[in-house]
Amino acid sequence: MELAYCGTQYHGWQIQANGHSVQSEIEGALSRRLRQPVSILGSGRTDAGVHAHEQYAHFDLPEPLDDLEQITYSLNAMLPPDIAIRRIFPVQPDDHARFSAISRYYQYRITRQKDAFRHMQSYYFRYPLDMEAMNQAACVLLQHTDYQSFSRAKAAVKHFHCTIDRAEWLPETGDDLTFHIRANRFLWGMVRAIVGTLLEVGQGRMTTEEFEQIILARDRRAAGRAAPASGLFLYEVGYPEGIV
Amino acid sequence: MELAYCGTQYHGWQIQANGHSVQSEIEGALSRRLRQPVSILGSGRTDAGVHAHEQYAHFDLPEPLDDLEQITYSLNAMLPPDIAIRRIFPVQPDDHARFSAISRYYQYRITRQKDAFRHMQSYYFRYPLDMEAMNQAACVLLQHTDYQSFSRAKAAVKHFHCTIDRAEWLPETGDDLTFHIRANRFLWGMVRAIVGTLLEVGQGRMTTEEFEQIILARDRRAAGRAAPASGLFLYEVGYPEGIV
Repeated sequence: MELAYCGTQYHGWQIQANGHSVQSEIEGALSRRLRQPVSILGSGRTDAGVHAHEQYAHFDLPEPLDDLEQITYSLNAMLPPDIAIRRIFPVQPDDHARFSAISRYYQYRITRQKDAFRHMQSYYFRYPLDMEAMNQAACVLLQHTDYQSFSRAKAAVKHFHCTIDRAEWLPETGDDLTFHIRANRFLWGMVRAIVGTLLEVGQGRMTTEEFEQIILARDRRAAGRAAPASGLFLYEVGYPEGIV
Repeated sequence: MELAYCGTQYHGWQIQANGHSVQSEIEGALSRRLRQPVSILGSGRTDAGVHAHEQYAHFDLPEPLDDLEQITYSLNAMLPPDIAIRRIFPVQPDDHARFSAISRYYQYRITRQKDAFRHMQSYYFRYPLDMEAMNQAACVLLQHTDYQSFSRAKAAVKHFHCTIDRAEWLPETGDDLTFHIRANRFLWGMVRAIVGTLLEVGQGRMTTEEFEQIILARDRRAAGRAAPASGLFLYEVGYPEGIV
């Protein structure tokens, strides 16, 4: 399934012991609708408060489903208004929402004026920012592959290698800014740590060289403070042609 | 002052005995900032959950204020993220946010696909709508002036005369629709009652003639159900040249 959600009200994508998650909402609705217990698996996790403009999840059933449009329609009626299922479609048995994905593209949105309507879906950052300096530092991200410095210390992963093939700030209407970053994979908290550190560069408190030193340090303590979840969107998930 | 707010979390503009209002938030912040009790008066009230893309309010002080930009900045820092003060500017002693206003322009926004990010700022209406039929009926609104049928029964007003000079549905991106309506004044609940009744027309359950009969009936019970507050925005307030 392809879906979108506003993460503000959730403790993230993944089911947690004592939290309200997007995954649990969807599993609950799907299980009620299909009258059988169904587990779903997403392309990746998003943290509390992080949004998904586009997320994918798969589930396995003993028999193919008829009338996927009708099921999509009733799921949307059952689900809360901040989770929208865009479509449900059949895939091959080996296709996997997480393991088949070849890229993840995130956007981080910054508003420069207080906006009463976008405070939950952006980060209102009122101080001056040098976008050119932030873009110079962002270029460095294309030249490295070990991102331990931008991974939350307790992340239980085998390695910290990520291949970033896009990292740039683009202006929006008004003085708003969006950071676009795409990689084969991201570590836990990585985009928010990168954005928080680039905002230091944008404020003239760090040079491109110092930004590169942080990457080379392979130590989370070297990086800046993580930017708030409200501005972060999982924007696109890439799969090999023919899957989605 | 010119301001905007997302009305979702408020019991409306006006201060109420046991409710959280936009007016009370602003009066509280302004009084703290100016170290004196300050009351503000808006161009008009908005109901619980109704938004303002543009609202005006005035307040009186014994002495002129210096550094209005600095005051605006600190008010925005004190106020919740869903209320944004755009600017504070001096006016003549006789200028009045409500009595000087010559027009109010509202928008009512309808989304046709479930949108995880806009559910608090639109009305998700999934059934087919005939926009042309709704626009034909909307034209009738330019030909009448007594709108008792679209006023909440308990509204304590002297008369029900409103001069509507714009009333039309326009398409937005996707299949979304926005209703644009402007008048010298509106009665309590009027826009939402008009939209709710036009949605009956759009679904083929009412003709333009029946819509006109409702207006002529001068009876709120004749009209359709009010559309939800989430889709309604006070969009612009008109003043004679030179005031704002």
